[in-house]
Amino acid sequence: MLTLDFHPTGRHFLQIPGPSPVPDRILRAMSLPTIDHRGPEFGALGLRVLKGIQQIFQTKHPVVIYPASGTGAWEAALANTLSPGDLVLMYETGHFAALWQKLASRLGVKTEFLGLPGVEGWRKGVQAHLIEERLKADKEHAIKAVCVVHNETSTGATSNILAVRKAIDAAKHPALLMVDSISGLASAEYKHDEWGVDVTVSGSQKGLMLPPGISFNALAPKALEASKSAKLPKAFWAWDEIVEMNKSGYWPYTPNTNLLYGLAEACDMLLEPAFGGLEGTFARHRRWGEGVRAGVRAWGLEIQCNEAASYSPVLTGVITPEGVDADAVRKLIYERFDLSLGTGLGKVKGRMFRIGHLGDCNDLTLMAALSGCEMGLKLAGVKLAGSGVQAAMDYFAGHPAPVALQKAA
Amino acid sequence: MLTLDFHPTGRHFLQIPGPSPVPDRILRAMSLPTIDHRGPEFGALGLRVLKGIQQIFQTKHPVVIYPASGTGAWEAALANTLSPGDLVLMYETGHFAALWQKLASRLGVKTEFLGLPGVEGWRKGVQAHLIEERLKADKEHAIKAVCVVHNETSTGATSNILAVRKAIDAAKHPALLMVDSISGLASAEYKHDEWGVDVTVSGSQKGLMLPPGISFNALAPKALEASKSAKLPKAFWAWDEIVEMNKSGYWPYTPNTNLLYGLAEACDMLLEPAFGGLEGTFARHRRWGEGVRAGVRAWGLEIQCNEAASYSPVLTGVITPEGVDADAVRKLIYERFDLSLGTGLGKVKGRMFRIGHLGDCNDLTLMAALSGCEMGLKLAGVKLAGSGVQAAMDYFAGHPAPVALQKAA
Amino acid sequence: MLTLDFHPTGRHFLQIPGPSPVPDRILRAMSLPTIDHRGPEFGALGLRVLKGIQQIFQTKHPVVIYPASGTGAWEAALANTLSPGDLVLMYETGHFAALWQKLASRLGVKTEFLGLPGVEGWRKGVQAHLIEERLKADKEHAIKAVCVVHNETSTGATSNILAVRKAIDAAKHPALLMVDSISGLASAEYKHDEWGVDVTVSGSQKGLMLPPGISFNALAPKALEASKSAKLPKAFWAWDEIVEMNKSGYWPYTPNTNLLYGLAEACDMLLEPAFGGLEGTFARHRRWGEGVRAGVRAWGLEIQCNEAASYSPVLTGVITPEGVDADAVRKLIYERFDLSLGTGLGKVKGRMFRIGHLGDCNDLTLMAALSGCEMGLKLAGVKLAGSGVQAAMDYFAGHPAPVALQKAA
Amino acid sequence: MLTLDFHPTGRHFLQIPGPSPVPDRILRAMSLPTIDHRGPEFGALGLRVLKGIQQIFQTKHPVVIYPASGTGAWEAALANTLSPGDLVLMYETGHFAALWQKLASRLGVKTEFLGLPGVEGWRKGVQAHLIEERLKADKEHAIKAVCVVHNETSTGATSNILAVRKAIDAAKHPALLMVDSISGLASAEYKHDEWGVDVTVSGSQKGLMLPPGISFNALAPKALEASKSAKLPKAFWAWDEIVEMNKSGYWPYTPNTNLLYGLAEACDMLLEPAFGGLEGTFARHRRWGEGVRAGVRAWGLEIQCNEAASYSPVLTGVITPEGVDADAVRKLIYERFDLSLGTGLGKVKGRMFRIGHLGDCNDLTLMAALSGCEMGLKLAGVKLAGSGVQAAMDYFAGHPAPVALQKAA
Repeated sequence: MLTLDFHPTGRHFLQIPGPSPVPDRILRAMSLPTIDHRGPEFGALGLRVLKGIQQIFQTKHPVVIYPASGTGAWEAALANTLSPGDLVLMYETGHFAALWQKLASRLGVKTEFLGLPGVEGWRKGVQAHLIEERLKADKEHAIKAVCVVHNETSTGATSNILAVRKAIDAAKHPALLMVDSISGLASAEYKHDEWGVDVTVSGSQKGLMLPPGISFNALAPKALEASKSAKLPKAFWAWDEIVEMNKSGYWPYTPNTNLLYGLAEACDMLLEPAFGGLEGTFARHRRWGEGVRAGVRAWGLEIQCNEAASYSPVLTGVITPEGVDADAVRKLIYERFDLSLGTGLGKVKGRMFRIGHLGDCNDLTLMAALSGCEMGLKLAGVKLAGSGVQAAMDYFAGHPAPVALQKAA
Repeated sequence: MLTLDFHPTGRHFLQIPGPSPVPDRILRAMSLPTIDHRGPEFGALGLRVLKGIQQIFQTKHPVVIYPASGTGAWEAALANTLSPGDLVLMYETGHFAALWQKLASRLGVKTEFLGLPGVEGWRKGVQAHLIEERLKADKEHAIKAVCVVHNETSTGATSNILAVRKAIDAAKHPALLMVDSISGLASAEYKHDEWGVDVTVSGSQKGLMLPPGISFNALAPKALEASKSAKLPKAFWAWDEIVEMNKSGYWPYTPNTNLLYGLAEACDMLLEPAFGGLEGTFARHRRWGEGVRAGVRAWGLEIQCNEAASYSPVLTGVITPEGVDADAVRKLIYERFDLSLGTGLGKVKGRMFRIGHLGDCNDLTLMAALSGCEMGLKLAGVKLAGSGVQAAMDYFAGHPAPVALQKAA
Repeated sequence: MLTLDFHPTGRHFLQIPGPSPVPDRILRAMSLPTIDHRGPEFGALGLRVLKGIQQIFQTKHPVVIYPASGTGAWEAALANTLSPGDLVLMYETGHFAALWQKLASRLGVKTEFLGLPGVEGWRKGVQAHLIEERLKADKEHAIKAVCVVHNETSTGATSNILAVRKAIDAAKHPALLMVDSISGLASAEYKHDEWGVDVTVSGSQKGLMLPPGISFNALAPKALEASKSAKLPKAFWAWDEIVEMNKSGYWPYTPNTNLLYGLAEACDMLLEPAFGGLEGTFARHRRWGEGVRAGVRAWGLEIQCNEAASYSPVLTGVITPEGVDADAVRKLIYERFDLSLGTGLGKVKGRMFRIGHLGDCNDLTLMAALSGCEMGLKLAGVKLAGSGVQAAMDYFAGHPAPVALQKAA
Repeated sequence: MLTLDFHPTGRHFLQIPGPSPVPDRILRAMSLPTIDHRGPEFGALGLRVLKGIQQIFQTKHPVVIYPASGTGAWEAALANTLSPGDLVLMYETGHFAALWQKLASRLGVKTEFLGLPGVEGWRKGVQAHLIEERLKADKEHAIKAVCVVHNETSTGATSNILAVRKAIDAAKHPALLMVDSISGLASAEYKHDEWGVDVTVSGSQKGLMLPPGISFNALAPKALEASKSAKLPKAFWAWDEIVEMNKSGYWPYTPNTNLLYGLAEACDMLLEPAFGGLEGTFARHRRWGEGVRAGVRAWGLEIQCNEAASYSPVLTGVITPEGVDADAVRKLIYERFDLSLGTGLGKVKGRMFRIGHLGDCNDLTLMAALSGCEMGLKLAGVKLAGSGVQAAMDYFAGHPAPVALQKAA
């Protein structure tokens, strides 16, 4: 029998920026028996989750659900809309933006990677004016798509997608706007239709509180139109058959039934009016981000994102002092306190760690996480300016959660 | 479908001194399909849990497992050994000692309730010398049994059971020694055989980390002998048929199969050599008790148990300052921080609250609980001398858990 | 980790007359985290299950839920209403009636055990006229209670409880009517109020489709009145405190929280209007009983219950031919076909086996069970008159389930 | 809360040829909390499942596990080994062979679709001599790969893969041999190394008894070599990074953690020596196939596969008589008997249905399925020659499962 027990007792604190902890309600939903994906119950389930996920993306257009993890949905967005050799303008906000760019290159499109020099771009959201300038310079409209990351999971910077939309419009450029909101969706505010996004890519294991294994492409008519002439080979990722069959609640090939059970439950939880619906969800994560950042500041440590308007409600990157290996601190914290934190990736490897406050959180879970960090930092010999735990308690106690966040007993 | 959701998000912190949080491993074990309690698989299960529970009680004698909650096991201990009108000497350590005494009275035995005056007895463990004196005075041996509570759940005082045994022996008195270790077993050290206990009563929802629903009578030959002539009516609780049928792994009536699945898993977890076995478990809870008490002291609040030798590794009672309604503080903490604490019971109602550190715990769970308490106390207007959270972090960081408490990765 | 695997593959068929198979919906509900039994969520749960179980018993009076298995509820019914030495008239329908009678004797009441001679009483329901005659002869009203079993689990005979009520009334006798419907409730029709029952005893692991571990006393005002003067010692089983605290949804001692989760789910399932509610449930079990009996008759084997009006919708007892050890057949079937059948008990040990059709059933589960029986009987050398499987298929195909038994897709 | 309940009671019989019923053991394993896919526990899990799945494929070479369903693994096999415009020889055994061919075309390779004319090829396994002839004619070695389906899920024909290997060798042709064993693996015998397969494609929701959501490419050195020069764009599916990172038990992108828990459990179950290991598993499915076919023959209906050597141990296709719409029969059976059967696909739509006997089966589950079919066929007005249920009982009773198929009690 499977057992994975590296700590003797108590619940593991999984505070990486995804996969996020899966609530018991969702794990229980996922343990329903697998059913015939061609039978009548499945059709009812399919229609239900397709409607629910549209509400999460805030779109009236089709959302394609892939039985694949998020990296696949990146590929799908490109493969459905582009042709070999097409030029794509991508913006470097951090490691995941870079991975998407690398994936695009492997698929055979040309990529131009825009961003601020050095690691500076890794400390801010997308600078929309740079995109506007570049598009204005592209008189021939060689650029077929602009790709940006909404919430950069490697740094904790959340970009202003509406500003990117406006930049494209200001440049009067026909490029598609494609956005990765893998870690943003359902924790950070996101409005696919209102922000004029053509394809939004997302995954299950972040704000949606599911295990990894399903991923999404939210579409817009312009993207669907582009897919008709796009020449990159596509079969598994092809939108056309999926969108068509989804009308009746089915998929052309075997869907990931048990994760769809979980998705139905997740939508119910996130949209629950008694808890403020999606707006209530976003407000909770904004507040948690504030509390965690208050803690980091009290420690005297720097926050990876140095642009206040782009602070992420999903995660906070913490830079360790010069000479302190952030991964050694993480290892110590994991071993002593059964707490998993996110590692620094790519350009910032060993220089920072990440605290997730996405998905299924509450104040005390974050207090536990901050306590583990504070004890671990001290044990690692880091001199702290003050108690981040105290600062976070002050913040959380002083700022009650918005209304409708607790049902009357 | 059942849903119980008074808080919108995140995991509830259940830090009452029982029921304690049930680990996922146990919940999963309990979800195995119910089987024929007369079939061959059941016999294998029965023998396995009966052997496991003996190791937990540290006894070679039979342990009776009832498909009933702990209060029933109190009744069973008395009903099997006593006759109507028998005199029982009980010791008042707190509310649960008082409830057992009340139950004994309802069953038709006479009880004498020994203890220190006022609430003083509720702040200490059993004073064994008082028992010795009383037994010595009982020249005619009218007293048939001495009943004490090992870990008084209402106060957080753990009594020295070996001292009680010695007191009885010193008095050369034939009374049975019956001990309630409902909340002590499997978190606080307990040695049924070595300490010379005749009947130990326990339950599932504390150190054993199970939901409520099964309970125990650990026996000794002297108790079994007494049961042959005891005249209180007994049927459901009668040891004789159960002990007989248990030899082959079965029960005379329908056992609580799914909780026995959980019990098998709990025994595996508690006895796991890689984590130090039972001794490792006890050491962990002792350390957690120290950390929590360090926190309470830093707040400048009094600990309910004022006798250091009797500090409980299971729970800590915290006295609120004069004029502060402890239950109002608990309610605020529950509503704002999704943390359940134990209420003050009986004589100390409204004057204190209880923090559980039994069962499936770890450092960060307790840091979360202490953070919730500290924020709630402040919000309730309690002036604290200092940060209990800081003190607990200092303790936990400064005192690594004993060896063997973490498997090498 | 716990594993109980005596067969390599596929799902075990548990066709004993209880514990019955626990539906996935209920197992999942039971895996919700245990909560504070003194907190606000628990009160909401408590009120919900107390209301639900009243609907199942068809009563407006209190139903006491014990955190104990069914045998305990037998004891509770007696201990709350009787005094030492009281005379109780019990009726012998089979092994479980005999066990209840034995339990009553152990509790210190006098029992008179009425019934037909030999095993004849084990093939029929209660003969109400015998009760009427006996009560009429009891001019002094020495008899304090009449105890009968509604559905005798050892034989498969369901008694006419209303007839017993009428018999008592016809005798103008003040005795309480106490009924065991442990295996009847929620599969066989039962109307506590309308049938004038004073105490009904039941359990969780039969028609309610739960694991064993909770049990019930449904009360009537006359029983509550009797409990005030009854002198048998009672504490754990005492109704008074439970009924009082239940008004707010709580219990005086720790309830079996996780089984109450399951009970909430079970009530939802049994009362679901789309499937015909309780009446739909009873109709389904009547039909399954018919189908199984058609099978047994086609084999040329005798049904244990030889009184058509008392055929049980819960289980069918099958008598093996002279010289065939029913338990050897059961063992062969278990080993070869992973099917558990009920053993013959007491007077009929080795002479018959029992097929359960209670709780969570459907036509094909019963076809599987009958196939296993038919193959096993043949392998054991029993000459069968014909194919019971064929007869059952003819019955099930020819008799569609009542309306409302399948939701439109 | 999610509920999917189109039938009121009892367990659904899911007898389609995949997804197959997921055993409770696996559902429970999958409900373990999701962990950090970069943490130490995950590495241990990764190494464990990678080793286990090699044993299932009977290979010493790398097996790539995709967090995607089976259709994706088809694409992966082609995308990693081929270049645009390459010619692939595929063999038409049925609908899934045709879907793979269609997918290959969409990816931009040229396909030649070999097979017997009309529906004849849909009633047999691969005719290896046709492949040999075709390859011999391909003097220039334009054909880069031969693609065949091991177990054709749409028909119930299992091809002789070793014969295909020998055909390629006999033709001295360098084409890669790529095999779809999506529905065959772990129910039908399969030897990746011994049979000289270059890429085997498989999925989770069939013999592996998991929900859909992960899929596999088992590799051989020749395929890995080919992947270095293959020019089809590949990123998500690219073997190189996955194989490299798998060496330490990790994946380049987020794996489907909870399904990997299930996979670990499935490997334990399938490889369990006490039940005969993989050989025992295959023997069980062969026997079940025999029993089901005995039933179909007794009905007087034709089996879709008309070549005895190719009868599938995974599923049996049943042709309905002329004029009988197989899908109407399936619908009736689903509605009346809560049994899901596979539909006829493509060329045989409406002309046949499919009974799955893959994955987690046992004799009585199949007896239930056959009973449902027999009742449904009769209700649909089909004249049956005799009782298939009777024939299957005769077969199962007369042919005990191979040794080691039941643990001693």
